[in-house]
Amino acid sequence: MDIMANVLLAAGCSPAMAHSLDEVEAFVGISSCLLVNMGTLSPDWVASKKLAARRAVELGKPWVLDPVGCGATPVRTASCLQLLGCGPSVVRGNASEILALAGAAGSGVRGVDSTAASKDALEAAKQLATAHKCIVAVSGEVDYVTDGKAVVGVRNGHELLTLITAAGCSLTALIAAFLTVAPQQPLLATVHALAVFGLAGEEGLKLAPRPGPGSLRVGLLDMLHLMDEATVKAGARIEVVA
Amino acid sequence: MDIMANVLLAAGCSPAMAHSLDEVEAFVGISSCLLVNMGTLSPDWVASKKLAARRAVELGKPWVLDPVGCGATPVRTASCLQLLGCGPSVVRGNASEILALAGAAGSGVRGVDSTAASKDALEAAKQLATAHKCIVAVSGEVDYVTDGKAVVGVRNGHELLTLITAAGCSLTALIAAFLTVAPQQPLLATVHALAVFGLAGEEGLKLAPRPGPGSLRVGLLDMLHLMDEATVKAGARIEVVA
Amino acid sequence: MDIMANVLLAAGCSPAMAHSLDEVEAFVGISSCLLVNMGTLSPDWVASKKLAARRAVELGKPWVLDPVGCGATPVRTASCLQLLGCGPSVVRGNASEILALAGAAGSGVRGVDSTAASKDALEAAKQLATAHKCIVAVSGEVDYVTDGKAVVGVRNGHELLTLITAAGCSLTALIAAFLTVAPQQPLLATVHALAVFGLAGEEGLKLAPRPGPGSLRVGLLDMLHLMDEATVKAGARIEVVA
Repeated sequence: MDIMANVLLAAGCSPAMAHSLDEVEAFVGISSCLLVNMGTLSPDWVASKKLAARRAVELGKPWVLDPVGCGATPVRTASCLQLLGCGPSVVRGNASEILALAGAAGSGVRGVDSTAASKDALEAAKQLATAHKCIVAVSGEVDYVTDGKAVVGVRNGHELLTLITAAGCSLTALIAAFLTVAPQQPLLATVHALAVFGLAGEEGLKLAPRPGPGSLRVGLLDMLHLMDEATVKAGARIEVVA
Repeated sequence: MDIMANVLLAAGCSPAMAHSLDEVEAFVGISSCLLVNMGTLSPDWVASKKLAARRAVELGKPWVLDPVGCGATPVRTASCLQLLGCGPSVVRGNASEILALAGAAGSGVRGVDSTAASKDALEAAKQLATAHKCIVAVSGEVDYVTDGKAVVGVRNGHELLTLITAAGCSLTALIAAFLTVAPQQPLLATVHALAVFGLAGEEGLKLAPRPGPGSLRVGLLDMLHLMDEATVKAGARIEVVA
Repeated sequence: MDIMANVLLAAGCSPAMAHSLDEVEAFVGISSCLLVNMGTLSPDWVASKKLAARRAVELGKPWVLDPVGCGATPVRTASCLQLLGCGPSVVRGNASEILALAGAAGSGVRGVDSTAASKDALEAAKQLATAHKCIVAVSGEVDYVTDGKAVVGVRNGHELLTLITAAGCSLTALIAAFLTVAPQQPLLATVHALAVFGLAGEEGLKLAPRPGPGSLRVGLLDMLHLMDEATVKAGARIEVVA
């Protein structure tokens, strides 16, 4: 939660993290967008996640699902599937998570090991997006974003980002932030969030004393705050794949 | 909790974070000061907070309340009010939180949105301090500290501090630390904690590669450890307002 | 948890943090090593810790115990003792924690205050190691590692490491990581983890703008990723004590 909140603050948002059953619905009421992260699966947290997701749908607010570790344990897969059923606007995972989620959702795609490349999960992502009427993003060396038909690829990022815990979760948080600006264009919002996050990682190491994950975390937060539009336009590597 | 603990360690303290009902009272027994932060409001955590606060009062130990997000949800306001009733030595919040807390406590002051300046909450702070016989600090561009009569302003700080998650919570933690040194002078302890924290933020960015929130977090912790008395004396901007 | 996960990622591992009763056994099933950290003692977390430890033993997988704050409260000491009874491969604590754990386990050694030097806990560590057929590491200015008979000392480290919250917990996490590489040589794995962690701390401050705990945390993570074998061989200060 620490780095997710810091990423959102650096990017100009006003995040609040809540998980108590008593107040998640009230928090959704005052928020522009909801992020549901499946990292922690205590029974009462899962109940809160469902409550919050349903409230967001009721209020017509966008919400984003991060199916952390989907496929790793049966409970985890089942919980992710339940949240998927609540109707997210966007789902963002790595290839293994998206494959496991699609497999559990009956797409016919089989789950594979965690070394899967993002491209391996593209078909699963398209099926998920079509079946659940949402945007699905698969992050990896190349990130893919699809609404079930169109596919956009994003080539920004730095390989050391995978060595920062919750970097993927933070990326999903940034997608939620971008959705608040363009709730009617979730594919576009997701693509730009991926590009900006990856670019901040690339730029973030440039003034670091060493190319290590500790320095990258610092520089990533700095650049999410400092990058201007010109830097993003010059550095974003976005391509329409299909 | 991570940055709060790191702030306290950098400042020379020995923090322990506990929330289990089974051991909070024992921890209060071996502590010099208790900090109650309302960030997480699971039902058992709220029960632990009350138990710990009551134990601190029983033992005559100072304790500090941070009413995180007071006013944001009904449960949050009600929980903060319950803790206020346990008799804190110091309460530290931003203008919105102090306004909401004072309003809920029946001061007649109305809560306003989160863009309130610290000055807007000064009257509410004075009423809270008088009614609950405690010190109330309102942080913002200028921080105000009052015992209900005297008002002291502190002008240290860096605007990027608001982009670090839990920076306010960490500031409250530092107040608790300063209270352990001067438990009989809570106003003075609070004022100096605010000045030192703000000054560490100002100094912390001076050697940073970039003026971003990632670098500030690193420099803040460095300077809380490294600042000497001369730097504090030269840099503290404290003024008696009333 | 944040810095523990980042330490493991920097060192090349693939950490997963789980505490739900519903999935800890499944996670142990797909892990190479289990780390049980006693920092958080909510009742359901303690139950999960025991379940996970027993599953690791059933599966013949190594597991490491960090008795955080053992001796600080009765609940904490009792919980640590219960986990010790589950048969850890390695136990790592500071002198106070090891003395308290040995005392509670009936070694006849008396607990002392938290200012104890690691050497003061050496006898307690040997008794614990012998009685529980495990490796015990006592960290301090000099770290000691024993299997009950042999004692190895490690002199790497930086005094500012004690000002980073969960640095000790992260060190224990690195021991778990090294155990996955040499599960049959737990003493050797533990000694090398201590040396590498300490050395990363020493090296980590070398390019920092200031010698503070914020910079050290960044540099530590950088160096855990970047240090090569030659640096470790040149810098490790390991000696056979007995």
